[in-house]
Amino acid sequence: MSLLEKTLGEIRPVEAALERAARARLEGLTKPPGSLGRLEDIAARYCLITGEVQQPVLGRKKIFTFAGDHGVADEGVSAYPKAVTAQMVRNMLAGGAAICVLARHVGAEVCVVDIGVDDPLENAPGLIRRKIRRGTANIAKGPALTRAEAVRAVEVGIELAQAAAAEGVQLIGTGDMGIANTTPSAALFAALLRCPVERITGRGTGIDDATLARKVRVIKQALKINRAQLSSPLEALAALGGLEIAGIGGLILGAASRRVPAVVDGFISSAGALVACRMHPPVRDYLFFSHRSQEAGHAAVLRHLETEPLLDLGLRLGEGTGAALAMPIIEAAVKIYNQMATFRSAGVSNKE
Amino acid sequence: MSLLEKTLGEIRPVEAALERAARARLEGLTKPPGSLGRLEDIAARYCLITGEVQQPVLGRKKIFTFAGDHGVADEGVSAYPKAVTAQMVRNMLAGGAAICVLARHVGAEVCVVDIGVDDPLENAPGLIRRKIRRGTANIAKGPALTRAEAVRAVEVGIELAQAAAAEGVQLIGTGDMGIANTTPSAALFAALLRCPVERITGRGTGIDDATLARKVRVIKQALKINRAQLSSPLEALAALGGLEIAGIGGLILGAASRRVPAVVDGFISSAGALVACRMHPPVRDYLFFSHRSQEAGHAAVLRHLETEPLLDLGLRLGEGTGAALAMPIIEAAVKIYNQMATFRSAGVSNKE
Repeated sequence: MSLLEKTLGEIRPVEAALERAARARLEGLTKPPGSLGRLEDIAARYCLITGEVQQPVLGRKKIFTFAGDHGVADEGVSAYPKAVTAQMVRNMLAGGAAICVLARHVGAEVCVVDIGVDDPLENAPGLIRRKIRRGTANIAKGPALTRAEAVRAVEVGIELAQAAAAEGVQLIGTGDMGIANTTPSAALFAALLRCPVERITGRGTGIDDATLARKVRVIKQALKINRAQLSSPLEALAALGGLEIAGIGGLILGAASRRVPAVVDGFISSAGALVACRMHPPVRDYLFFSHRSQEAGHAAVLRHLETEPLLDLGLRLGEGTGAALAMPIIEAAVKIYNQMATFRSAGVSNKE
Repeated sequence: MSLLEKTLGEIRPVEAALERAARARLEGLTKPPGSLGRLEDIAARYCLITGEVQQPVLGRKKIFTFAGDHGVADEGVSAYPKAVTAQMVRNMLAGGAAICVLARHVGAEVCVVDIGVDDPLENAPGLIRRKIRRGTANIAKGPALTRAEAVRAVEVGIELAQAAAAEGVQLIGTGDMGIANTTPSAALFAALLRCPVERITGRGTGIDDATLARKVRVIKQALKINRAQLSSPLEALAALGGLEIAGIGGLILGAASRRVPAVVDGFISSAGALVACRMHPPVRDYLFFSHRSQEAGHAAVLRHLETEPLLDLGLRLGEGTGAALAMPIIEAAVKIYNQMATFRSAGVSNKE
């Protein structure tokens, strides 16, 4: 049995009884019932995921930023040259990228994973080397990856999440870096959600109208040429996906298999999350969606996933920046659950 | 000249040139322009408020939670007995209230200020004693406060903010505790925004339909009986307000007078903010609105103030809990501004 199959088998539906126990405890805290809104929902979900309702712990946090290149960048769908993927990997390793600043701010570690950068990235200390191949093939001309490559990329994510859980990480964030990667993400959304390409395709790093029109045409072409290979989530991932999207999907599966909550970043990470949820629907309950991306289409994706993200700050950077910003909110919820006084302990009168 | 008059004279309109300088710096950071959305707006505003565009500093953070009682509680407008105000003050001093948990989480100090609790609060170490009177008078029967009392309550807030600024606090949060205080807040909104009472009146701590109908009637009665004393923001505050609302308004004025950004909590704090902005409109630019409260009417207030808050988490607790949760986002923005690499320094290719 492959690691992927084994992992899917390990992911159990969450137990509703745990949520009831958590809600009962929240009711006794010194505040009007429900007055902490989504913080209470988050705390209950954290208990549900981890299985711990007495004293849930949220200590170590780790964000995995998967970097990969995309053959479809050759079609001129991005505002930046492809070389920026490798340059930004180096910027991340040096601590100068946005994700580094935000991860330091929230006390999370960042792991930068080369899962498919089209550059040897020599002399890059700190880089986690899991390159499957140097970038995907151009999805406008055929499949991005073979099925075997897609499985291996997913398994890289699984391995990293399971290793993190084994070393005591209690909250895992997803992140991405890859010039042109809103294109495969939009293609995957269009294929898996069966929604119009125009509705799900945005300006990525900031492309102009002409480039946006070309991007839509390229995605339609990719869906057409790969149409025979879209019948399962894994096949769609291989046909249209990016290596970083596959890695993120695997990371989510691996986290769920160890009952570690995963915080999903924005547009690209949601593509990975969608693939993971389609492979195994119970995964859905192990996720926190961090933010609504400014990227056109993300709102529709979140509606489809029936989730309301924690933040709506107009971000569209990726890297895991939204996941990092959401982490303190999840921690706040867990601390409310653990540390607040009860009406009884504080001698506060309850509702009349 | 009174402290209030002097403080109003010290609050200057912000300088647009500072925002342009901050935006120019943000453009050079290693990310697509604008891709950090509201974090970029926050960073620019922080520079604008503090006047520092080279290396803005955000170190010490302090939340002032003003506690006061309300004569109008006698009308049965709350789900909790009036004694809960003093009980919750003690819970806050003991560290068991939600605001204590969240302030510890974000590294902010909490100052609990008795500005008008109807209880002597003896043996309450840590309490900041600035009681103007033991609760307001019942606004359904006449003015809540004399004009002199309202001015003194505002000046308590001014003094606390200016003292905090002098001791190096760089971000000030507002908070409230006072059973029944959504009633005077809604009355103030209705008076100052000239909007229907029904639209601005919510369920507070969780009242039922009958109590909500009574609350609306009570507010209408308060507006009617005090109608001759609503022509200026200060008069309206004295007629309808709470002591904690006045203190919050003063805190905001005091912070702005020292170019310290103030983070406005939810429904009650917005009433204080609205009074402050009506007294002196340039104050508006010194504020961050932390969250959209679940309390019905807050969304309308925020629309009137033409502001989109940072968070929308369904909170309706007050105490400063929303302000606390928003602080790490403001810090994140300042760190992005200070710590990210530039395209030039990191050797990353810019847009094609």
